[in-house]
Amino acid sequence: MKVREIMDKEFVVVSPGDSIVDASIKLEEHRKFTTAVVDDQKKLVGWITSLDVTRGLREGKEKVSDIMYSKEDVVHVHQNDPARLAVLEAAHHNVVSIPVLDDDGRVLGVVRTFDIVKTLSSLYEVKVSKIFEALTEELKGVSWDELMEASAIVTRRRTGKRVKPEDYEKRIKNSTFGEAIWATGGLENFFVGFIAIGELVIARKVAKARK
Amino acid sequence: MKVREIMDKEFVVVSPGDSIVDASIKLEEHRKFTTAVVDDQKKLVGWITSLDVTRGLREGKEKVSDIMYSKEDVVHVHQNDPARLAVLEAAHHNVVSIPVLDDDGRVLGVVRTFDIVKTLSSLYEVKVSKIFEALTEELKGVSWDELMEASAIVTRRRTGKRVKPEDYEKRIKNSTFGEAIWATGGLENFFVGFIAIGELVIARKVAKARK
Repeated sequence: MKVREIMDKEFVVVSPGDSIVDASIKLEEHRKFTTAVVDDQKKLVGWITSLDVTRGLREGKEKVSDIMYSKEDVVHVHQNDPARLAVLEAAHHNVVSIPVLDDDGRVLGVVRTFDIVKTLSSLYEVKVSKIFEALTEELKGVSWDELMEASAIVTRRRTGKRVKPEDYEKRIKNSTFGEAIWATGGLENFFVGFIAIGELVIARKVAKARK
Repeated sequence: MKVREIMDKEFVVVSPGDSIVDASIKLEEHRKFTTAVVDDQKKLVGWITSLDVTRGLREGKEKVSDIMYSKEDVVHVHQNDPARLAVLEAAHHNVVSIPVLDDDGRVLGVVRTFDIVKTLSSLYEVKVSKIFEALTEELKGVSWDELMEASAIVTRRRTGKRVKPEDYEKRIKNSTFGEAIWATGGLENFFVGFIAIGELVIARKVAKARK
C-alpha cells in the first residue's frame, strides 16, 4: 500500500502572505489543527499549527509567514512512499498529520493520524472466525466441525481450561483478531496456537486417510 | 489490554474559570491541541481545543467556560475499558485524544491517536521471520531448512514465481507482518499461505516418520 492510498485529498492550504486571522478562520471552519503553507504553484513552503496561530493572535503577529515552520522542519512523505513509512513517521514525530508531496514538491494530500488509526484498526477488527474459514478452505478434507473439535482440544492442552467445540465456535465468531492477539499475549503466540490446531487436524486427516 | 495501559498520564488540564489567554499559553507550552476542563476534584466538566481558543481570542471571549464543550459532548472512556474501545472511538469520532476517567469521573489520563498509532503499528512491525521461528518451535521435528524449502515450494505454487529457499529466508528476515499482509492482500490470505506451508511440512514430516 502506498501513501497516496491512505491520504486525504480533501485538505486546506494557506499562503505565506495570508493574514493570521484569515488562516485561523480557515482552520476553525475545516476543523484542522495543522495545515500546509504553499506557494502559487501549490509547492510546500511551510507548515502552521493552531498553537502557533493562538500565539500569533495573542502577540499581535500579522502574516502566516510570521508564525510558520519552514519546509525543512516539516515532516513530509512522497505519494509513492510505502504507507507504513507515513505510519512510522507519524508515530515517531508525534504529529497529527503529514503532507504528501509529488516529485515537484507540490502538496497532493495529507495523511492524518486518525486515518492511520482507521486503516490499522480495520485489521484488528477482522473476526477470528474469518481466519478459521480461510483455514477450512485451504485444508481440503477437513470439516468445520473437525476444526472446532481440534481447537477445543488444543485450548484445553494449552490453557488447562475445558471448552466445548460449540463454545469455541461462539467465541471466535464474537472475537476479533486484535482481541485474540491481546488475549494470547502477542502475534507469535497467536500463530503458535493456530498452527497447533492446524497440526492436529492435519494429523487426524492423515490418520483417517490411512485407515 | 486495558485503556489505562495505553493512556498518557502526563497531561495538562484547565479550569472553567481560567482565562482563555492562560489556557492558550498552557496548550502552546505543552504542545497540546486539546485538553480536559476539570473542576476542583479533577472531575471532567468539559473539553477545549486550540481551534476554540483561536476563535475565542479573535472574538474577545474571556473564560474557558465561554468556549468549552460540555461533558456530554466529550468522547471519553473508562480506565478499565478495553484498549480497543479507545481505538474505535478515536477512529469513529476523528479526535486526536480522549480523556480517561475513573469511576468517579475524575481524569486519570489521556489516550492520544499517535500513541494508538504507536501501539497498533508495533504489531505491524513484527518481523515475519519471528512467526516462522515460533512455527519451528511448535512443530517439533521440523527443521528451519525444511520450513524454508516448503515455503519456497508453496510460494511457487501460489504465485508461479520460482524462489530459492535462501532467498525466501532473506525475504522474511527483512519484511514485516504489515508488509506481508499488504503484499498478500489481507490477513486471511496471509494465514492461508502460512497454513499451506504448515500443511506441507507436516505432510512431509508424517511421510518421513512412516518410512
